Amino acid sequence: MKVSVCRKAHFNAAHRLYNPNWSEARNNEVFGKCNNPNYHGHNYGLEVWVSGEIDPETGYLIDLKILKKIIEEEVEDRFDHKNLNLDTEEFKNLNPTAENICVVIWMLIRAQLDEKLDLKVRLYETERNIVEYTGPQ
Amino acid sequence: MKVSVCRKAHFNAAHRLYNPNWSEARNNEVFGKCNNPNYHGHNYGLEVWVSGEIDPETGYLIDLKILKKIIEEEVEDRFDHKNLNLDTEEFKNLNPTAENICVVIWMLIRAQLDEKLDLKVRLYETERNIVEYTGPQ
Amino acid sequence: MKVSVCRKAHFNAAHRLYNPNWSEARNNEVFGKCNNPNYHGHNYGLEVWVSGEIDPETGYLIDLKILKKIIEEEVEDRFDHKNLNLDTEEFKNLNPTAENICVVIWMLIRAQLDEKLDLKVRLYETERNIVEYTGPQ
Amino acid sequence: MKVSVCRKAHFNAAHRLYNPNWSEARNNEVFGKCNNPNYHGHNYGLEVWVSGEIDPETGYLIDLKILKKIIEEEVEDRFDHKNLNLDTEEFKNLNPTAENICVVIWMLIRAQLDEKLDLKVRLYETERNIVEYTGPQ
Amino acid sequence: MKVSVCRKAHFNAAHRLYNPNWSEARNNEVFGKCNNPNYHGHNYGLEVWVSGEIDPETGYLIDLKILKKIIEEEVEDRFDHKNLNLDTEEFKNLNPTAENICVVIWMLIRAQLDEKLDLKVRLYETERNIVEYTGPQ
Amino acid sequence: MKVSVCRKAHFNAAHRLYNPNWSEARNNEVFGKCNNPNYHGHNYGLEVWVSGEIDPETGYLIDLKILKKIIEEEVEDRFDHKNLNLDTEEFKNLNPTAENICVVIWMLIRAQLDEKLDLKVRLYETERNIVEYTGPQ
Repeated sequence: MKVSVCRKAHFNAAHRLYNPNWSEARNNEVFGKCNNPNYHGHNYGLEVWVSGEIDPETGYLIDLKILKKIIEEEVEDRFDHKNLNLDTEEFKNLNPTAENICVVIWMLIRAQLDEKLDLKVRLYETERNIVEYTGPQ
Repeated sequence: MKVSVCRKAHFNAAHRLYNPNWSEARNNEVFGKCNNPNYHGHNYGLEVWVSGEIDPETGYLIDLKILKKIIEEEVEDRFDHKNLNLDTEEFKNLNPTAENICVVIWMLIRAQLDEKLDLKVRLYETERNIVEYTGPQ
Repeated sequence: MKVSVCRKAHFNAAHRLYNPNWSEARNNEVFGKCNNPNYHGHNYGLEVWVSGEIDPETGYLIDLKILKKIIEEEVEDRFDHKNLNLDTEEFKNLNPTAENICVVIWMLIRAQLDEKLDLKVRLYETERNIVEYTGPQ
Repeated sequence: MKVSVCRKAHFNAAHRLYNPNWSEARNNEVFGKCNNPNYHGHNYGLEVWVSGEIDPETGYLIDLKILKKIIEEEVEDRFDHKNLNLDTEEFKNLNPTAENICVVIWMLIRAQLDEKLDLKVRLYETERNIVEYTGPQ
Repeated sequence: MKVSVCRKAHFNAAHRLYNPNWSEARNNEVFGKCNNPNYHGHNYGLEVWVSGEIDPETGYLIDLKILKKIIEEEVEDRFDHKNLNLDTEEFKNLNPTAENICVVIWMLIRAQLDEKLDLKVRLYETERNIVEYTGPQ
Repeated sequence: MKVSVCRKAHFNAAHRLYNPNWSEARNNEVFGKCNNPNYHGHNYGLEVWVSGEIDPETGYLIDLKILKKIIEEEVEDRFDHKNLNLDTEEFKNLNPTAENICVVIWMLIRAQLDEKLDLKVRLYETERNIVEYTGPQ
């Protein structure tokens, strides 16, 4: 009996979108206000969906204390109240779009998760801007 | 790296559910209050989910200005503040149930969307009545 | 110990905004798309807040069965799945703006409610358009 | 044209998580506060997603009166305002974790649903703790 | 410049509504399913609103670490994952209706809060059942 | 008949909380992670509540085109996709706490609003951190 379980988390961060290989004019054309050199920010909402078999002894898919610790260490400690461009290794050379942030978080959690479990990450940049990643296919 | 991105939209419209080939009694039995000949209405909520590869230069799946324009022209300009039965070509001869509206919106957006991208449309007729369509399978 | 208790309700209705004493041009200027002669519609959300003393025997402010019945009879039976302009007495000669609908609902519930209780009505025309009325002051 | 339609429901129940084959120490270690012998409780939120072909005559996937009746009889009448451990057959010998409740509800609805329709059940134990089950795979 | 600031919290608890001085028939008539002797439960949502002057040095109304600690000690530690009727002093002899729970929480927080600050407590028993208390008037 | 009407808006911004007259140690003690010198950010949600008499000719409290324009010019153009500390006049010398942002927005809108109308501003820094200001009292 394969089920999926979701745990939610949040982090608040500043970022700026731009491509250092482009002219300022092209950056403004593509990224508009998101290219503010002084940064802007978001409340990022995170849904971490894990799929697998229910453990018949506990009735749980996963001990949530483990999943919670993974999310805290891999996502919240890294990104919460940070400037994604300046304060993180992950986005020093990667444009912190919602798409890229979602994929990076998937890889960070995937590396710590039991191989038997499947993983889907949904990232809310705003209530109206959502990205989902389920891994390479 | 294939991700999905969601853009939300809204439109407010009036409609009436009935089948012109049926008797009034049968229409009332199946559609109940939704068969009011003077119409009723809803705030329709729309989630347009597009899937595909992230562009490595922008970090975006799609230029949202393009998707926004498609939704405005194909959905909002057509249906917002309209009577679906009287004011639209699409529902002149098609019962405007949430299921049919969802499929029609999918087809309207699909026709304007890059072939490389997959499309899923989720329509909220109310907070408690939701339909989803991902295309012919 | 005076507390306030809220009960929520919903109704779906069609309406058109216009002033019959005005020219078509003036109606379009003020009411824009809301002046569609074929109507549009909304999912109206309702919060009915009642204030008063807690009954020490029940621990309740009001027997909710009574409040529920009032809302059903005075609001839902009257307005749900109706065309406000055509199907109701209340808006035959009153423009069904969110403001006017909110005041009308307040008066309909007030007339049925125990005099010892205070009443506030909050109406959501959409998630982004809210009106509140607490009675004459 | 295969679509999915969602109907929502709610029930409020008490429960306790524990494994009768384990020591009290092990139960406390795994289930923590959820192992309170006097029980605690939740507002469970339910999304029942049904998939299949749209009926061309009605424009509906399913007559919602049928689905509503199934959910009321199989879920709400059984579990609403109940103590899951003491008042139900289903959880007399099965730990009422969100995972197990979700699977049980899926099986109860599946048994009453037309074979042509697919079924997915999503259960919210809290706003932050969600489980999804789509049947054996 | 007097502002209001809200902090949210949650607790999950079991309860039963009844009046020990009444017959079983009268309890069932008034409290219905809420009178289940084996208890049922809820996810209670809490909004604690504090009003007062902004501190010009910090720009804060209140050091949220203090308010958070008060809510944890006075509300969450007392009521979370508890049976309100059996596990708490406050509801041993007081019917745990949403109204009474809201007033009790107000009194518990009021006793720990700086006298200069005003207090309002809003309790969500469900998303559709809300109580608010602002103290004796 | 005095009613209140709400219009919602959003803006995304970066900020840093600190008092330049304090030591770094004191700033860290009071503002913690919010004192990151590289900034972090939020999706700010805004509810602008205006109260007054319904215009009997329109059934409106206020022409929403006017209120919308005020919010765009006074709030969104000033603060959206900005660094509040670096890019704005208002917070050059004022700590951009949610309390101070809420009061500043109230004053900016108040200055443009008809004297006959009352104003309340509610600011959501996150879904869990809310401030409300109704003017000097």
